[in-house]
Amino acid sequence: MTSELTNQFKEPIFDVAQIAHVEVLSPTPKETVAFYTDMLGMEIVDQVAHKTYLRAYEDNYKYSLIVTEGEEAGLGHVAWRTTSPQALERRVKALEESGQGIGWANEEYGHGPAYQFTTPDGHKMEVFWEVEYYDCHEDKHSKLMSRSQKRPKHGVPVRRLDHINLMSSNPAADTNFMAETLGFKVREQIVDNDHVIGTWNSVSNLVHEIAFMQEPTGAKGKLHHVCYWYGIPQNLYDVADLLKDHDYFIEIPPNKHGVSQAFCMYVYEPSGNRVELFGDAGYLIFDPDWKTLTWEMEDVPGNGDTWIGAVFPDSFWNYGTPAPATVPVKVAAE
Amino acid sequence: MTSELTNQFKEPIFDVAQIAHVEVLSPTPKETVAFYTDMLGMEIVDQVAHKTYLRAYEDNYKYSLIVTEGEEAGLGHVAWRTTSPQALERRVKALEESGQGIGWANEEYGHGPAYQFTTPDGHKMEVFWEVEYYDCHEDKHSKLMSRSQKRPKHGVPVRRLDHINLMSSNPAADTNFMAETLGFKVREQIVDNDHVIGTWNSVSNLVHEIAFMQEPTGAKGKLHHVCYWYGIPQNLYDVADLLKDHDYFIEIPPNKHGVSQAFCMYVYEPSGNRVELFGDAGYLIFDPDWKTLTWEMEDVPGNGDTWIGAVFPDSFWNYGTPAPATVPVKVAAE
Amino acid sequence: MTSELTNQFKEPIFDVAQIAHVEVLSPTPKETVAFYTDMLGMEIVDQVAHKTYLRAYEDNYKYSLIVTEGEEAGLGHVAWRTTSPQALERRVKALEESGQGIGWANEEYGHGPAYQFTTPDGHKMEVFWEVEYYDCHEDKHSKLMSRSQKRPKHGVPVRRLDHINLMSSNPAADTNFMAETLGFKVREQIVDNDHVIGTWNSVSNLVHEIAFMQEPTGAKGKLHHVCYWYGIPQNLYDVADLLKDHDYFIEIPPNKHGVSQAFCMYVYEPSGNRVELFGDAGYLIFDPDWKTLTWEMEDVPGNGDTWIGAVFPDSFWNYGTPAPATVPVKVAAE
Amino acid sequence: MTSELTNQFKEPIFDVAQIAHVEVLSPTPKETVAFYTDMLGMEIVDQVAHKTYLRAYEDNYKYSLIVTEGEEAGLGHVAWRTTSPQALERRVKALEESGQGIGWANEEYGHGPAYQFTTPDGHKMEVFWEVEYYDCHEDKHSKLMSRSQKRPKHGVPVRRLDHINLMSSNPAADTNFMAETLGFKVREQIVDNDHVIGTWNSVSNLVHEIAFMQEPTGAKGKLHHVCYWYGIPQNLYDVADLLKDHDYFIEIPPNKHGVSQAFCMYVYEPSGNRVELFGDAGYLIFDPDWKTLTWEMEDVPGNGDTWIGAVFPDSFWNYGTPAPATVPVKVAAE
Repeated sequence: MTSELTNQFKEPIFDVAQIAHVEVLSPTPKETVAFYTDMLGMEIVDQVAHKTYLRAYEDNYKYSLIVTEGEEAGLGHVAWRTTSPQALERRVKALEESGQGIGWANEEYGHGPAYQFTTPDGHKMEVFWEVEYYDCHEDKHSKLMSRSQKRPKHGVPVRRLDHINLMSSNPAADTNFMAETLGFKVREQIVDNDHVIGTWNSVSNLVHEIAFMQEPTGAKGKLHHVCYWYGIPQNLYDVADLLKDHDYFIEIPPNKHGVSQAFCMYVYEPSGNRVELFGDAGYLIFDPDWKTLTWEMEDVPGNGDTWIGAVFPDSFWNYGTPAPATVPVKVAAE
Repeated sequence: MTSELTNQFKEPIFDVAQIAHVEVLSPTPKETVAFYTDMLGMEIVDQVAHKTYLRAYEDNYKYSLIVTEGEEAGLGHVAWRTTSPQALERRVKALEESGQGIGWANEEYGHGPAYQFTTPDGHKMEVFWEVEYYDCHEDKHSKLMSRSQKRPKHGVPVRRLDHINLMSSNPAADTNFMAETLGFKVREQIVDNDHVIGTWNSVSNLVHEIAFMQEPTGAKGKLHHVCYWYGIPQNLYDVADLLKDHDYFIEIPPNKHGVSQAFCMYVYEPSGNRVELFGDAGYLIFDPDWKTLTWEMEDVPGNGDTWIGAVFPDSFWNYGTPAPATVPVKVAAE
Repeated sequence: MTSELTNQFKEPIFDVAQIAHVEVLSPTPKETVAFYTDMLGMEIVDQVAHKTYLRAYEDNYKYSLIVTEGEEAGLGHVAWRTTSPQALERRVKALEESGQGIGWANEEYGHGPAYQFTTPDGHKMEVFWEVEYYDCHEDKHSKLMSRSQKRPKHGVPVRRLDHINLMSSNPAADTNFMAETLGFKVREQIVDNDHVIGTWNSVSNLVHEIAFMQEPTGAKGKLHHVCYWYGIPQNLYDVADLLKDHDYFIEIPPNKHGVSQAFCMYVYEPSGNRVELFGDAGYLIFDPDWKTLTWEMEDVPGNGDTWIGAVFPDSFWNYGTPAPATVPVKVAAE
Repeated sequence: MTSELTNQFKEPIFDVAQIAHVEVLSPTPKETVAFYTDMLGMEIVDQVAHKTYLRAYEDNYKYSLIVTEGEEAGLGHVAWRTTSPQALERRVKALEESGQGIGWANEEYGHGPAYQFTTPDGHKMEVFWEVEYYDCHEDKHSKLMSRSQKRPKHGVPVRRLDHINLMSSNPAADTNFMAETLGFKVREQIVDNDHVIGTWNSVSNLVHEIAFMQEPTGAKGKLHHVCYWYGIPQNLYDVADLLKDHDYFIEIPPNKHGVSQAFCMYVYEPSGNRVELFGDAGYLIFDPDWKTLTWEMEDVPGNGDTWIGAVFPDSFWNYGTPAPATVPVKVAAE
């Protein structure tokens, strides 16, 4: 009875489970780490050579962020966890066949064997299965079983890593690569006269674990932002108030995104890397046959960017890291 | 290198995508429907014989709730959508083998072929692949592409169906049945001296699309509650305020659940069926190797039930529908 | 012991208690009233000739808003209630002496004898003591004793009138007039090279019941906005979402004001009159010896206007009603 | 024209402006102070002998709380600031005439001459005019002019002192005393068969700066609670989450009071003193001719106490400090 459909419908790939961690580069690692600890309430798990490993209080693995000292701000790498060891084998095979594979990593801090690769635009990534969980000291145990440790007493603490947004000289190429090799689905996209300006892609019920946005000058491999999650809308105003009083730069105040419906805000950490904070879950996608939503760029301002009044400043579309020497950091507020 | 693990790890089943709709029975269908429309801002899609089809404004299928006139309050059935037509074939095969299968449904209102079955406790369910989407009239289109229609102007409108909670004479048996035939994973459970009191199970990143709780008298097939989702914590207080002023019974005021971490509240609609409302996403599970969290019943009051002060009233553990003639409906407030 | 201070300190005037109601003019009264009822959940109390009387559900007098049909949008009048009949006598005497008095009003709908006057800029006002309370029908009584009626089931209902903001060709003159004749205290002000651009004035613990802002072209008697109060921050996002989906113009999305610290947003009702909505109480002033806070205009953008990122659009500083024929209504969103 | 009314209406007293500070006694001052600093984000201003002076970040005087080491938990004293030096003279005269006056205080830390007195039930109080403002170090200045210092980086910081609630063997007597000598107005009251169980009294637009509640055993001079203000509802959940994870006792979770409509919660600090936290402004009273709202005790549970579901635990009505040796501290959660 359903035999006809069976012939037509291509079953999804369920091999990648989640974003596991992100590495960012910072020429001012001390100040960058202080931003994440003092303002966002994250914890330093370890410091090895020029790398600081950090986690949010509901991240359940050993860490979700690496701040690595570097000459310029920008992306180090993004790590994905598969849904099984077999899934890892299948994805490594696909990555090898794509020609974008690098090989198995030498370093395995906090996880098992990791296969490295780059997107067509040159963003470095890795995929692994085995992972080390956070080992919470008895004094810090929460009675809340799903919480990895007690809620921190400092800053306005974020709960977990949410997603990454990368600038690309060719968003369509990167998007297709992620879909074909890792099974990402394109949930929403912005097109301008048939040119793909941005895509939001996920392997889960989230609208995205990874987005790609057009880098306007054609530069490659840039970072647009890393996003951490609160899940509580008011917390964005609380942390924004704290950030403002402590002289951090807020690029875009709390508002609801049209794309993803998430309650969001944007701030730059001291090295210049943009950080997004999420105040709710936006909408979640359960429909297994989701058709990509396509926004025309002309409909985006005041609808697709911030749903409620105001529009994104130019910096949102133009600024990524590494950035030119003269950074227009305070576009929005001056 | 990962070959050893491969031999050990059983890959998950990804065949069921989501809860698609729920049918509830009501001896007072007019009042029950008025509760859902006037208070929760839902829309009547169609009325056929003794059935009223309703949807929330971000539900993307034709309907998510059927209110059917019946002699007693309680559950009609629960419908699941698979991730593909092939997945439907596989699940039907597993259900047939389980001995719990009924057969293909005669009625296909709003969806394609549906295979019916019951849980060991007798709750009626169905599973299908093809589904009819909501056809929004042009006047009601939202500029927000992921929203199925404009936000309603009445009540405090819920956004989408979230989950179902069923009382069972044997929660462990129902839980195992859902895991084995449909691939549900047990995210959290409550045990009392090794006896399973409750389980929270999902096929998605949610902590649960279905929960089973011990029915204390051994009665079978009862409904504990249906849950709709706001995603915004304050909305629970807004709707609670509205419900209180319009004389509906609020069993449990807004609070954070320990289990699932969701911001929740409970109310009874006029027929006596319990309805839960969710104010956020709780925590989401991305770890593909999640180990079931086990609460001892003695740790639940003030931790697993409501995280912040107060504990659940007895009615929460004892009351389901259909209920005995003398219902202790106002346990909490009197 | 305190005798020296006694000689120095001028005791405050406590004769005006509150803003009692506001009359606005609208060339599209039907649409203006629909905005207040469908979106803000207000109730029509009465309609007499070309006037519609409205109230919010926690306003305790008969009405707080009059929408009067007029050729142009703008202010009708503002009404103040005194703290006693004796206080009314004293204020009438002061108003008569100021030369701005008009005389006792012919019309006393919903209140007792009202003495009329204008500000130096020509805004019409009145002051009275006796007032008619809202007579709530038994069916609509709330169990919440301080609530004048049940929470409405439509729109995102505002709770009460909060304040008025008037554009003036000479804010300093109007401010001094209100201080001298009615006892208003200047809580905050903006100056630009010693010229007063705006003042926020109150007779209560609020930062203002009335503000005056510089009209840039020198036009007189304009209305900047009327403000209604929710007291709950999230409600601003809820009503903004509703307004956006129903095609109303949101000039400034929810944000925290620097001046007053109130959580605010701005929208235009269909006739072009600006409406502000307040999501909390901002800060309250209890210090009886409050010293006016003075902002330099150069420090206002990004601090005194919206505290968290972004700045006010030009329309906020330039647009009032009545407005020139070609109104730049959609400055912010286009 | 208004001459008749003039003869009838008694003009209000406007001589007391606000609650200025509260002194609490604690047998565990170190732990009590740690609660206020680590959890509520307050700052230690000074420590002199057995007294610690603390303030919230939007308190504008030098301090709002004194924690004094004592053998038992309970109230030290409450301080009120007048609206002028003349008002102080008038109130001292009235207090002297009442027979409850003690005399001018020997100690004037942080303020000028203070006249001491007790309520009929024996609660110690003082009233003064001159006050020392908080002297904010340049490094801690906020750009927000109405904020006394930057928002703190630790705990979930409260903004200012709100009110005090005292248990009394005779609430009516204490209420009348405050009205007659200091001009307090009774905003709401609870009566049980004509006996006054509780009163909420204010000199400002707040529903209360001071409440009196019946002490059930007839003990005198007890403290029910001190209340600090957030003004943001979600902050109650944030601080409750923090308190729960750090093992403090939450007596009543966040909920809306019927009396005062305030969003509230109750916790005990380590010495056993109850602390309330306010998440919004409730409703504000602007009507100068406010008639006391009277609740019958039988209507209070589920309406006057917590508006939305649930009722107060017995401890709320019975427990104050100093408390009997065996304190039923964990009534609610066990």
